[in-house]
Amino acid sequence: MANVGTPDRPGNPDDGLGDGLGDGAGEPEPNSAWLSDLELADIRRRLPLLYVEAVPVRVDGLGVVTSVGVLLRANDVGQITRTLVSGRVMYGETLRDALFRHLEKDLGPMAFPQLPPSPVPFQVAEYFPIPGLSAFVDERQHAVSLAYVVPVTGTCEPRQDALELTWMTPAEASSPEVHAEMEGGRGTLLRAALASVGVLG
Amino acid sequence: MANVGTPDRPGNPDDGLGDGLGDGAGEPEPNSAWLSDLELADIRRRLPLLYVEAVPVRVDGLGVVTSVGVLLRANDVGQITRTLVSGRVMYGETLRDALFRHLEKDLGPMAFPQLPPSPVPFQVAEYFPIPGLSAFVDERQHAVSLAYVVPVTGTCEPRQDALELTWMTPAEASSPEVHAEMEGGRGTLLRAALASVGVLG
Amino acid sequence: MANVGTPDRPGNPDDGLGDGLGDGAGEPEPNSAWLSDLELADIRRRLPLLYVEAVPVRVDGLGVVTSVGVLLRANDVGQITRTLVSGRVMYGETLRDALFRHLEKDLGPMAFPQLPPSPVPFQVAEYFPIPGLSAFVDERQHAVSLAYVVPVTGTCEPRQDALELTWMTPAEASSPEVHAEMEGGRGTLLRAALASVGVLG
Amino acid sequence: MANVGTPDRPGNPDDGLGDGLGDGAGEPEPNSAWLSDLELADIRRRLPLLYVEAVPVRVDGLGVVTSVGVLLRANDVGQITRTLVSGRVMYGETLRDALFRHLEKDLGPMAFPQLPPSPVPFQVAEYFPIPGLSAFVDERQHAVSLAYVVPVTGTCEPRQDALELTWMTPAEASSPEVHAEMEGGRGTLLRAALASVGVLG
Repeated sequence: MANVGTPDRPGNPDDGLGDGLGDGAGEPEPNSAWLSDLELADIRRRLPLLYVEAVPVRVDGLGVVTSVGVLLRANDVGQITRTLVSGRVMYGETLRDALFRHLEKDLGPMAFPQLPPSPVPFQVAEYFPIPGLSAFVDERQHAVSLAYVVPVTGTCEPRQDALELTWMTPAEASSPEVHAEMEGGRGTLLRAALASVGVLG
Repeated sequence: MANVGTPDRPGNPDDGLGDGLGDGAGEPEPNSAWLSDLELADIRRRLPLLYVEAVPVRVDGLGVVTSVGVLLRANDVGQITRTLVSGRVMYGETLRDALFRHLEKDLGPMAFPQLPPSPVPFQVAEYFPIPGLSAFVDERQHAVSLAYVVPVTGTCEPRQDALELTWMTPAEASSPEVHAEMEGGRGTLLRAALASVGVLG
Repeated sequence: MANVGTPDRPGNPDDGLGDGLGDGAGEPEPNSAWLSDLELADIRRRLPLLYVEAVPVRVDGLGVVTSVGVLLRANDVGQITRTLVSGRVMYGETLRDALFRHLEKDLGPMAFPQLPPSPVPFQVAEYFPIPGLSAFVDERQHAVSLAYVVPVTGTCEPRQDALELTWMTPAEASSPEVHAEMEGGRGTLLRAALASVGVLG
Repeated sequence: MANVGTPDRPGNPDDGLGDGLGDGAGEPEPNSAWLSDLELADIRRRLPLLYVEAVPVRVDGLGVVTSVGVLLRANDVGQITRTLVSGRVMYGETLRDALFRHLEKDLGPMAFPQLPPSPVPFQVAEYFPIPGLSAFVDERQHAVSLAYVVPVTGTCEPRQDALELTWMTPAEASSPEVHAEMEGGRGTLLRAALASVGVLG
């Protein structure tokens, strides 16, 4: 089943709060921001949810992207798939807070991401529960995701349910093979990321 | 009271559905997308809402922005203020559908807007119910708004509660006077719009 | 021989002046702006030349790109290749003037292009006479090209040396076949164009 | 006299080569790239010259711009004016090479700039020798400048003819006072830079 971010687990993993309250950095007021699974499921039928996504990259001394990081994981039905860093924006948090929080959730606390000065994403990805409305599908919800290319300068240790973070060259990341392995249509988003930084073949 | 879009009235005016169901163009499945005032008020305390905003402009034959349109209206406490075209993205509708629907809601059916080919906004404005977190305030909610500059080629007849649509030169739109009259911090957003099309002084 | 724009002919075709002075729309002061072949050849060894390029597209009523136009032509050695609308920026002309002038030169006077309000290109392509410095090659010169996606609303009649203007779907334009047929590395630029407007697969 | 970058001195200071050949980092092939004053003056009447410009900024841990750096200098007629980091792109060098070279020329070798991953500028500024064609004037030439916001993480020691590098808050940098002190219309460019990173008031 294609879905945004990590698979559903107790504690709303897309919220980046782990198994309960208080595990994520910068967690907002729990009373209003924390949604039970039941509440989240109901909300997911009523309105679009706001997400942020990130393509982690390595850059050289002149800012040229040399490597692209893609998460490898097993989805709900046991398939090995690839995905990007992503997660929901909580009530009361800024986009930057959310981006930083999910980067730490998915890549560990030693990744040292350099969030871009501009809040404008390289692409806005619209996920619908029904295929055909856009290039992106998420059977659980209608989600609108602001996507960013984020240089990381430290050490990445994928957490949660990721099997590994695979570093690829831009050429490898552009390939049809990787495109086919990406969840939910994210091959399209990854290519748009590479194009935005001038390294798509 | 500063707020996003038009003031609260029955039928969730920010949804662009007028006083009841079925008035807006491209209205999605009413059962899931339509939120009662009570439901909307509850949701507004729990998660951020997604909005689209537009700065209507006139362009010349070479695409240069020559006029900027700003809505003039009376807010809830009787002040005359200025604002932009805006409204909520409903469950199941694309950003383009929402943008088109709100442009028609605020400018009438003869405006003939030319939506930009790229879905990337010129700015992402984050409205919080508490001042200080960002440049934008909306006492009712946490809203994240994707803002676009949209050339209009037809005739605009502001509807709903707007007193008029004021066409200004870019210089007038950049002025401190207009900046001070804009609701919710939108003077900042208007200036960013002008800067993005190269006409901010 | 891969090269930018149309092949070399008397009157500096990349300048869009046809076979002599005064054929292009918006032609600047001939005394200073017109360069003889000898002068142009010398300048081409001494400093980078500024170009504008355009990907003509058709859009639907909501601004979604539905077709992409690519020029088909025979290059200097008789190969059939594909390229984009392009040409040099002359002394004293604005980027918009240059863009409009080259669009008219390559697509005819009935194309009715809608130049974007923002002067920021979707990509900046750097062409070098030696491969390897970037994705783009032009054996004649070092050229830096500002590239734009431009909706056209009229009728296109390719002029100069183009055999035809081929309208393709975004999927066709993204294909490896078309990628391989583009001159000077422009397959990369075309893909970046499609990505910027959200239609790259 | 308003002009782009530093005032004219032997060795074409806008080229960033100091008083002679070989002082700048990454200097290209001298035989073709180095232009004598006479040659440069002639070329400046015949075609547009390509420049890069940078607004140095400090960012916090979440990427938010907290300070903006503006160069203070005395121009040719003894006026104290403000300007940005800028300089010409030489034959055979990439935009990144030029940007890095001019940042080092104007801010010293310990500034440690973080060039953005994307080559797309926040604005393209067109300077003409005659006022009125655009917001920017350079009496010496027609120059087209690609402008970037560049975070710097080290220590800046302004070199060449700058009196100092003034660090300002975004609010100070947006002020009418600073706007009026900027050379060649660059107040407009500085405001566009602030708007692009969401800190223009």
